[in-house]
Amino acid sequence: MPIYFVTSNKNKVREAEEILGKKLKNVKLDIPEIQSLNVEEVIKEKAKKAYCKIKNPVLLEDTGFYIESLNNFPGALIKWMLGTLGNQGICSILKDEKNRKVTVKTCFCLYNGRNFNIFTGSLKGTIPKTPKGETGFGWDPIFIPDGYEKSFAEMTSEEKNAISMRKIALEKLRQFLIAKARKRRR
Amino acid sequence: MPIYFVTSNKNKVREAEEILGKKLKNVKLDIPEIQSLNVEEVIKEKAKKAYCKIKNPVLLEDTGFYIESLNNFPGALIKWMLGTLGNQGICSILKDEKNRKVTVKTCFCLYNGRNFNIFTGSLKGTIPKTPKGETGFGWDPIFIPDGYEKSFAEMTSEEKNAISMRKIALEKLRQFLIAKARKRRR
Repeated sequence: MPIYFVTSNKNKVREAEEILGKKLKNVKLDIPEIQSLNVEEVIKEKAKKAYCKIKNPVLLEDTGFYIESLNNFPGALIKWMLGTLGNQGICSILKDEKNRKVTVKTCFCLYNGRNFNIFTGSLKGTIPKTPKGETGFGWDPIFIPDGYEKSFAEMTSEEKNAISMRKIALEKLRQFLIAKARKRRR
Repeated sequence: MPIYFVTSNKNKVREAEEILGKKLKNVKLDIPEIQSLNVEEVIKEKAKKAYCKIKNPVLLEDTGFYIESLNNFPGALIKWMLGTLGNQGICSILKDEKNRKVTVKTCFCLYNGRNFNIFTGSLKGTIPKTPKGETGFGWDPIFIPDGYEKSFAEMTSEEKNAISMRKIALEKLRQFLIAKARKRRR
């Protein structure tokens, strides 16, 4: 059965296909996300609505940005904070903050109308004093993964994708699909 | 036809009945809100879902908190910022900010399955350096309406309700209902 990856980002589809070693159907759906800090909650609600439209297994993805000194705000609401404050604005409100820790978390949800299968990848890192780098998108300029000196936006996409939270989550999904295929063959 | 006010807050029902001079049916529904900074957008989506369940005219309300120096973040997402940072945390991230301006906006939406009628009340004010006062709820301790020295949380509920953005919106709704009743009698 085909899997429908619900996203408007072609790069995400290509990346997922590469890691999964499997063709995905890509579909764009305009489904509003629910308010929550929790990416898993957001993505499960969205998966239900997507399944109602597609009537085939759907795959969805969401990423949250959890700033420790802000008590893990904004989480899944990061896009609204970025859209108003921008990376510079986020650095500004943390100007005097010593605790620069942040956790980024990607959640993939595979839903077949009965079961939710959730695959999560997390990375810990720090937020620099000012945005760094030009490549990538979203909060890439303000995320320096632990163990590295460079922000995501200062890495090549190969460097970034090799360690990203999205990669970790997709790797779990790949293992799940392999196990499932094995089971079916028995 | 009865109006169903969808809220889990009994005080809001009482306040609305007092201002409208009309009995409302109160109903609690667990409907997730969509992600948006815009209270009008949030409330219209919620009204559609509420109407699907109630099949009678529904009334819903949402309030946003638009901080000027944060480019009007967090708006309708204020409850998540309050839930993580709290009033003290919001004051902290604005510590060195000279622009203390904030606009609060309440939106009531009356939806009969065909037409949305939106009634909005806004108030401008400032955010103090630290939360002030004990009464009220939510962001009341960090909102000082223009022309006043006291925060909402330092006012009696009579003082607050006489000038609140909710009062302004409900007054518009009252005028709408009166005009509608008149039309019907002609």
